[in-house]
Amino acid sequence: MSNKTFKIDLLEFLATAPATYLPGVSVNTVIFTCQGDKLRVLLVNYNDLPHWYLPGGFIEKAEPLHDAARRILAESTGLTDVYIDQFLTTESQTRSQEYFVDEVLKKLVGSLPAGHWFEQRFITVCYYALLDERKVSLQKPPFVSELKWVEMDHLPELLFEHKAIVEKALQRLQKDLDQELVGLNIMNETFTMSELQQLYEAIYQRPLHRNNFQRKMLSMNLVERLEKKYTGKAHKSPYLYRFRKRRKK
Amino acid sequence: MSNKTFKIDLLEFLATAPATYLPGVSVNTVIFTCQGDKLRVLLVNYNDLPHWYLPGGFIEKAEPLHDAARRILAESTGLTDVYIDQFLTTESQTRSQEYFVDEVLKKLVGSLPAGHWFEQRFITVCYYALLDERKVSLQKPPFVSELKWVEMDHLPELLFEHKAIVEKALQRLQKDLDQELVGLNIMNETFTMSELQQLYEAIYQRPLHRNNFQRKMLSMNLVERLEKKYTGKAHKSPYLYRFRKRRKK
Repeated sequence: MSNKTFKIDLLEFLATAPATYLPGVSVNTVIFTCQGDKLRVLLVNYNDLPHWYLPGGFIEKAEPLHDAARRILAESTGLTDVYIDQFLTTESQTRSQEYFVDEVLKKLVGSLPAGHWFEQRFITVCYYALLDERKVSLQKPPFVSELKWVEMDHLPELLFEHKAIVEKALQRLQKDLDQELVGLNIMNETFTMSELQQLYEAIYQRPLHRNNFQRKMLSMNLVERLEKKYTGKAHKSPYLYRFRKRRKK
Repeated sequence: MSNKTFKIDLLEFLATAPATYLPGVSVNTVIFTCQGDKLRVLLVNYNDLPHWYLPGGFIEKAEPLHDAARRILAESTGLTDVYIDQFLTTESQTRSQEYFVDEVLKKLVGSLPAGHWFEQRFITVCYYALLDERKVSLQKPPFVSELKWVEMDHLPELLFEHKAIVEKALQRLQKDLDQELVGLNIMNETFTMSELQQLYEAIYQRPLHRNNFQRKMLSMNLVERLEKKYTGKAHKSPYLYRFRKRRKK
């Protein structure tokens, strides 16, 4: 997308947004995935802006909030049928909002009419999802020219307070992982105990003791044991497990 | 407050609200207390409207969200220094919003200008607190003429989707009670194990087994044991406990 097209599209968006979307409320999504034992987050950018940020968008005037969150998740991942959880509603600090308007928006489109919809304060409703990267097909939502997965321990500075939002999403993910079957989106239908342990290690960002982990998982009644995985060597084959119950999305 | 004064105040409020508050976002508070083993919720009403509802309000244009929630809590309870937690952001169904505008608001003030701020859709950010009723001095916020504590198992029909909001607040309270020291607001500095058990029974709404409860509390490291309570009969005196750490508000 050339800078010129981008500018025209953004001007058009700015002109039509107030009639299309709820004022003062946005949605941001923290999309996690695990690659091996590394937890990663999806970040986006518009035409080489100095700061990356979280995928997000606005709520159509008659669109239910949860539908807006699922639409916004689908716009960047192509996935429509995954579990997504609201974990926080927050807002940008005044100085972040001013930075965005003065240093980002006005440099892209020139001046804005005074008191324009986009200059006003926004409350943002934040959702997170833990997705299987192999099922995601990254695609560009409106006003995104680049997307990338970034490891949690290598996050760059982000626009607004998005870094704090990611950190709160991780806390919630850690807290909910045992209870909420958040792992359903990312694990295969059946898995070995060591595959499950790798997921937990990525999310807790530290190694876990193998025996303790297995004992805890079984005592929580989260997973059930199935037959052994077929490897050709029966006595060395690990057992397969699956989550006991599916939760509604 | 007479109906006439109320109508004038409400008209004035409707005229000035768009310049004072953020559009499209409100705050609701679910305020719990325990009396003995009964969990109760604070409900409010305006001049005998057919449905009671939760205390709530709007966010001033430059007011941080969390400050708005604490202000709104203080307006009905007089308490400014208590732990309050955000647990949900939701919205009213279209039919609830229409009912409110047509059957409540228009009956109070006559017609509204088309597309008035108050007729628009609102997203509501919901907070809960568990308070010590003895420390609360109920007082009337703007446009509230009556407040009452209602037992959880005797909730009447409520305006909008406030009943569903109360039920979700209770789920969160039950989930957080062990981890979040939510009990700090409501327990004395020191307490006996049976006082703590009574709080848990009120919130889980079922009796708990005494020995199991005590074992669980001690294993969680949530409370620490102090000296025995002085009752004059040393061998029958219960131990006193206190929460191990204080969390920030």
